[in-house]
Amino acid sequence: MTTLTRRAVLAGATVATALTPLAAASSAQAAAPLAGKQTAGWYRYKVGNHEVTVVTDGLNTFPLPDTFVTNMKKDDVNGALAAAYMEKDKLSIPYSPVVVNTGSKLVAIDTGTGEANFERSKGAAGQYHANLKAAGIDRNAVDIVLISHFHGDHINGLLTPDNKPAFGNAEILVPTAEWKYFMDDGEMSRQTTERMKGVFSNARRVFDALGRKVTPYEPGKEVAPGITSVATYGHTPGHMSHIVASGAGKVYVQADVTNLPALFVRNPGWHAFFDQDGKMAEETRRKVYDMLVAEKLLVQGFHYPFPALAYIEKSGSGYREIPVPWNPVL
Amino acid sequence: MTTLTRRAVLAGATVATALTPLAAASSAQAAAPLAGKQTAGWYRYKVGNHEVTVVTDGLNTFPLPDTFVTNMKKDDVNGALAAAYMEKDKLSIPYSPVVVNTGSKLVAIDTGTGEANFERSKGAAGQYHANLKAAGIDRNAVDIVLISHFHGDHINGLLTPDNKPAFGNAEILVPTAEWKYFMDDGEMSRQTTERMKGVFSNARRVFDALGRKVTPYEPGKEVAPGITSVATYGHTPGHMSHIVASGAGKVYVQADVTNLPALFVRNPGWHAFFDQDGKMAEETRRKVYDMLVAEKLLVQGFHYPFPALAYIEKSGSGYREIPVPWNPVL
Repeated sequence: MTTLTRRAVLAGATVATALTPLAAASSAQAAAPLAGKQTAGWYRYKVGNHEVTVVTDGLNTFPLPDTFVTNMKKDDVNGALAAAYMEKDKLSIPYSPVVVNTGSKLVAIDTGTGEANFERSKGAAGQYHANLKAAGIDRNAVDIVLISHFHGDHINGLLTPDNKPAFGNAEILVPTAEWKYFMDDGEMSRQTTERMKGVFSNARRVFDALGRKVTPYEPGKEVAPGITSVATYGHTPGHMSHIVASGAGKVYVQADVTNLPALFVRNPGWHAFFDQDGKMAEETRRKVYDMLVAEKLLVQGFHYPFPALAYIEKSGSGYREIPVPWNPVL
Repeated sequence: MTTLTRRAVLAGATVATALTPLAAASSAQAAAPLAGKQTAGWYRYKVGNHEVTVVTDGLNTFPLPDTFVTNMKKDDVNGALAAAYMEKDKLSIPYSPVVVNTGSKLVAIDTGTGEANFERSKGAAGQYHANLKAAGIDRNAVDIVLISHFHGDHINGLLTPDNKPAFGNAEILVPTAEWKYFMDDGEMSRQTTERMKGVFSNARRVFDALGRKVTPYEPGKEVAPGITSVATYGHTPGHMSHIVASGAGKVYVQADVTNLPALFVRNPGWHAFFDQDGKMAEETRRKVYDMLVAEKLLVQGFHYPFPALAYIEKSGSGYREIPVPWNPVL
């Protein structure tokens, strides 16, 4: 294995090809080293006149914890992984933030695990900012960053590795209820688990570095042209989803209404370890997914496999996602 | 709509980004033109030590013919499209050839609709050679081109737009039975439909331009390191599939054992217009798909949506493909 660098993993082949197509391409020659790199992880589709760019941050792979699904046994989780042709005793959770160009505003919805995570994860995650650039999107041109909730995989990309604002010219919009809860010193003082203490302190680390310059937003508001906020509380106290609509096009950007579809779309009654209020998260999930089925509405899932765009149908006692076929033209 | 060019559609963003990242990226700036282009269509995965690169040629969209499924009514086909959340009265058929780097040989399996088709299709198809380059693969480094059968979307990419060999240094392997059938003047003279006459004359156009310099191969042979041919006759008289195996890894590269999975994986008894012998093609399809289910074997489908890699399970009276989650790292 060669050492991974951001350039090699994400942009190496295309950069080299752009400069000297034939010479560079010989790296794939037989009896020569294998190419060893994946394509840049972005994908674009239209919602009416809006352009949505899905920008993967990569994924996090870890041994399946005993309590990943808090109301089920580990064997049940392994059963669901096997049913989805996934390896047992292991989880790979992908991150798929999106950027919406409304024509008048460039809006990033969530931001990934942060560039600093690239080295830490040996290139598996922290890819968002490099993929954003590969997609031709200048983060300094982003007008609005719309945060769904305050978990690290959604907010850490707000900062550069040296803790400066990554989106230098953007207004940062945060859910009012989320801000109120996580910035409340009383709430923080009442936390008893290391994990929840960590969520609080990480949120403060990020927003303090931004001088707490954020704009709180309410549910049911058009927060940008054609982008409306929807309260989907439960995963966190102020968790928000977003409906992107333009012309006849519409997509439901769910954030963490579910985690991995193979577990929680198939089994909406399962409570993820990351769901702060499992019962409320389940109620929200069932309500949202019944609506997605009834309205045949596209869903963009933050923890769905890239490019993370699907229709939902009922299946057994739960649901099943039907990935939208990849479109090789825009 | 702006006029499409190969450069703009396939490489524009990455080329510009590579040269001047920030300046070029401002094209995505809000109140500026939308990016208007899709990412380069290639995806890479490992099969043991082999590297497989899926390289999309794009897709062909056309009004649903009355007889696209020869043994069913148009309404049935529209029903299957609706069940897959696809538009009715319309078909979009994607092309997903692959290239396998075995470490000692670089092997292209099928070649797409040809570069000349890029302009003709307004950029929707004919993307293969540009995407191959974007993937860092020099077509002059390809050692073997392995042809599954002689339909134009599999062989036209063997030639450049000026009818020269596109793979200058490759040995072209063709199924023995396919060669024997389509190069037989008697068989050609007995064709009665314009379509079949066209298949014959196109095959001769392509192979004549190559000076008929091809190497016939038989089923059940290791035609390249870890790549074995399998007879899957029916779609055409000599139609061949390929098993790529290395270490514990294995994938079944099916070519046209099915066309669109939404129609023919769900309904293996449906006969596609393109199946020359519908009954034999169905027998082959059922045999192959029962095997894929029993062995939990990955299938790479030429007409599956990119990146066209899935597991197969039984579903109702047919099968269902479970796409393999996109891996943002190799």
